[in-house]
Amino acid sequence: MDKKKNISMAVIKRLPKYHRYLSELMKNDVDRISSKELSEKIGFTASQIRQDLNCFGDFGQQGYGYNVRELYNQISNILGLQKDYNTVIIGAGNIGQAIANYGHFQKLGFNTIAIFDANPKLIGIKIRDIEIKDIDELDNFLERNTVDIGIICVPKVNAQKVCDQLIAGGVRGVWNFAPVDLVVPENIIVENVHLSESILTLIYLLNESEQ
Amino acid sequence: MDKKKNISMAVIKRLPKYHRYLSELMKNDVDRISSKELSEKIGFTASQIRQDLNCFGDFGQQGYGYNVRELYNQISNILGLQKDYNTVIIGAGNIGQAIANYGHFQKLGFNTIAIFDANPKLIGIKIRDIEIKDIDELDNFLERNTVDIGIICVPKVNAQKVCDQLIAGGVRGVWNFAPVDLVVPENIIVENVHLSESILTLIYLLNESEQ
Repeated sequence: MDKKKNISMAVIKRLPKYHRYLSELMKNDVDRISSKELSEKIGFTASQIRQDLNCFGDFGQQGYGYNVRELYNQISNILGLQKDYNTVIIGAGNIGQAIANYGHFQKLGFNTIAIFDANPKLIGIKIRDIEIKDIDELDNFLERNTVDIGIICVPKVNAQKVCDQLIAGGVRGVWNFAPVDLVVPENIIVENVHLSESILTLIYLLNESEQ
Repeated sequence: MDKKKNISMAVIKRLPKYHRYLSELMKNDVDRISSKELSEKIGFTASQIRQDLNCFGDFGQQGYGYNVRELYNQISNILGLQKDYNTVIIGAGNIGQAIANYGHFQKLGFNTIAIFDANPKLIGIKIRDIEIKDIDELDNFLERNTVDIGIICVPKVNAQKVCDQLIAGGVRGVWNFAPVDLVVPENIIVENVHLSESILTLIYLLNESEQ
């Protein structure tokens, strides 16, 4: 795994896409694929594909291409999907519920073990058999359970406080949907989904293409 | 606006973040700010900030810094926020409802004029005064209304079909939440929010940082 060091963020960001396309190929019973064929499907150049995959080890054979299942399994391992992850969702509004309901995450190995909210009307309701708990129970819950990833779906004014609680409770990965940049220690990983920034990019490109 | 051409995607992706921070500064009654102070808040270097903003025109003055409101207005204009946009949401599941309920989008100038779904149990229900319509009415609706942006929140098997309908109906911007890469003509702008890819990136970085 020595090759894994110093991989650029651009390559890392492409790995989940390889994972998704290889999963589709497996579903369609495709056993092997050349970098050229994969290129036509995925939209990266064949040479980029060879370069990307070469960062992680020697996949593929000259004249044969890639064994789809083997490559899928190796990319799954590189991504860290050989094990399961415990997640908690903070905020049971629409986004929080969407994630709790998204069956695909469970297939990937993410187990939502609790959902928290401050709204008394939501506390006690179940989403996919997971009861929404009172946010006041969060600290206690984190003391008693190992949680790998905290998913922050609260309004932005509460996001930093929730984030601090998660980190104090031993959570090292934060998936943040609040439109705010969280301040965290260096050893904590934050991945943001900033919806406003996404739609503003769309608008910019839309206007630019009209000129 | 000649300077606007050939702006790199990296700069474009940073503009919404400037917009968000400047909006916060205005709310806190900050009138002016130096690139150094902005740098400390936003996390880009001061020289990057000067370079970025210089792509679009001559903002800021030596020794004075940036006039916050003026810079905010200019970035709003560059992003295309001087006008409103009509949007339709296809798919009234959790993600579709989250977007329909997200008041911030309306403040930015996005008007959701219709929501469509195929589920008879949802058709007729209102979200923020917008009635969920039968997906079978989509083509007719697009003929009778000008829609700038179609927001695709349907399962992946239906996403391409819905996208084709939107484009045939004159929609040029697609905000896609389905975990699939849509095939569109060159003049159509697609911005994807691929949640699985986001969480897989988080997992990769989390595992890497543990090594």
